Amino acid sequence: MPSSATPTPTSTLSPASDAPIGVFDSGVGGLTVLRALRERLPDESLLYLGDTARLPYGTKSPETVVRYAEQAARVLVRRGVKMLVIACNTASAVALEHLSAVFWPLPVIGVVEPGAEAACAASRSGEILVIATEGTVRGGAYERAIMARRADARVVQIACPLFVALAEEGWVRGPIAGAIAHRYLDGVLREHAAADCLVLGCTHFPVLRAAISEAVGPRFSLVDSAETTARVVAAQLAARGLLRKPPGKAAKTPGEPSGPHAGRCRFLATDAPARFARVGAVFMGEALAPELTAEAVELVDL
Amino acid sequence: MPSSATPTPTSTLSPASDAPIGVFDSGVGGLTVLRALRERLPDESLLYLGDTARLPYGTKSPETVVRYAEQAARVLVRRGVKMLVIACNTASAVALEHLSAVFWPLPVIGVVEPGAEAACAASRSGEILVIATEGTVRGGAYERAIMARRADARVVQIACPLFVALAEEGWVRGPIAGAIAHRYLDGVLREHAAADCLVLGCTHFPVLRAAISEAVGPRFSLVDSAETTARVVAAQLAARGLLRKPPGKAAKTPGEPSGPHAGRCRFLATDAPARFARVGAVFMGEALAPELTAEAVELVDL
Repeated sequence: MPSSATPTPTSTLSPASDAPIGVFDSGVGGLTVLRALRERLPDESLLYLGDTARLPYGTKSPETVVRYAEQAARVLVRRGVKMLVIACNTASAVALEHLSAVFWPLPVIGVVEPGAEAACAASRSGEILVIATEGTVRGGAYERAIMARRADARVVQIACPLFVALAEEGWVRGPIAGAIAHRYLDGVLREHAAADCLVLGCTHFPVLRAAISEAVGPRFSLVDSAETTARVVAAQLAARGLLRKPPGKAAKTPGEPSGPHAGRCRFLATDAPARFARVGAVFMGEALAPELTAEAVELVDL
Repeated sequence: MPSSATPTPTSTLSPASDAPIGVFDSGVGGLTVLRALRERLPDESLLYLGDTARLPYGTKSPETVVRYAEQAARVLVRRGVKMLVIACNTASAVALEHLSAVFWPLPVIGVVEPGAEAACAASRSGEILVIATEGTVRGGAYERAIMARRADARVVQIACPLFVALAEEGWVRGPIAGAIAHRYLDGVLREHAAADCLVLGCTHFPVLRAAISEAVGPRFSLVDSAETTARVVAAQLAARGLLRKPPGKAAKTPGEPSGPHAGRCRFLATDAPARFARVGAVFMGEALAPELTAEAVELVDL
């Protein structure tokens, strides 16, 4: 069945499974998660909110991040999402529990737990490096999540705030990205010779994967929480019967979206949507699709 | 007269001139302005607000920056400042007129006009480069302020957002700072061979002065809006009879503070005061003084 352009849902799927997945981040970084979700779940409708009026979250206090995250999530919940994905490591680290309680029974998925799970599976030595924002490092959520799964693990966290600005500037390859990666990582690599797994603990970082990978060398597995989160989202939707395309209703060709609004991404930004579209292209790995609707959503502090 | 530790004012100066100068910025960048003010006006009491809960302003829309700037200014006005200094180029560029109207008759000084004035005086060729945040460049305030003073000027604006992160990380010298400065500036220098003046149009940038100066070479005058703003503040206070130390009442040794609370800097941050103190040290050029009082001020959106 070809995808339909009509705005009125005509699907026979239940409203719940037909609803979009809500994804939010402080800005554009979470688009790496959105991209992974779109690749894994091409039938799903995705609604993304970038809280660009208050970005970044990574340098702010836990209390402030929790407040901002709840406000951002509420915008998505009001629009009827069937699941919330916190596509921001800082917010996942400090606000997952709070959002799960506030929006219960809506499923809420963060990026930290999937990343920790993947790191524990990938590391042989148990010595795991986590690179992240200052806020994520200070909160220690990755360390806790990894240790809870693997008691023999040794976790080393490194705050790499310049990577965020570098990714937003789009300078993702070349000598400057390389020099910054080496400056952040060389000393740590010398001190932790047994480390064999590096977690990209910020949704901005996957776009810098080549530079980071070169800096740490081939002995490292790189864990990209965008990919691991997309896997968990797919599994959770399936477990709850909330996948948009019901089992047995296969698309004609693999990856072809089916049903009304299938595969549709909508974008909301709390400020400066033009910048969001421009910088966002770096993270989506392509010019943002023509169906981009960058709405400015005014958030009011609690 | 030695400075007094008593919290009760005992000065015979008028309350107005005895009041502190209020200075605000989105974060720590404005501390370069505070530092210049303290050097030029060692007798003045200074009250600084860093709006760290919503930093940075440079990537946000004019409407949002105006709203945040008004809220930040209001915190200082409530504490009885005798003058407002917008120690942030982005906010000066978009909110100076608004704040001047809202808080009239309180004098409000931004950093753009003094910087433009100094650039016009410093450039022989009239070809002037302005490096700034994306928000300041988009607003074009430096270009307007320069052209209003010197009709023959040719202004080239360059957004250098990575400089902000670099300054906050404290990587202010060395090969990475140099490489980033060259990447932003080399092409512009080739295209504008007659340019001879560079305006540091963001309060973060003075700490990167050495790297920027090396990248542009010796033919350039660098205009630091922190210094030029401090000169304008001193002149405006003198013109209004608001200088703390009245004429004729010289301190015993030059630069020695006089009177209660003279030379005192107080610091407020809307979030994460510990980070503010740590990163702020890079900008003040010293560890923040023991009298640092980093109060968390909750700002409520309008």
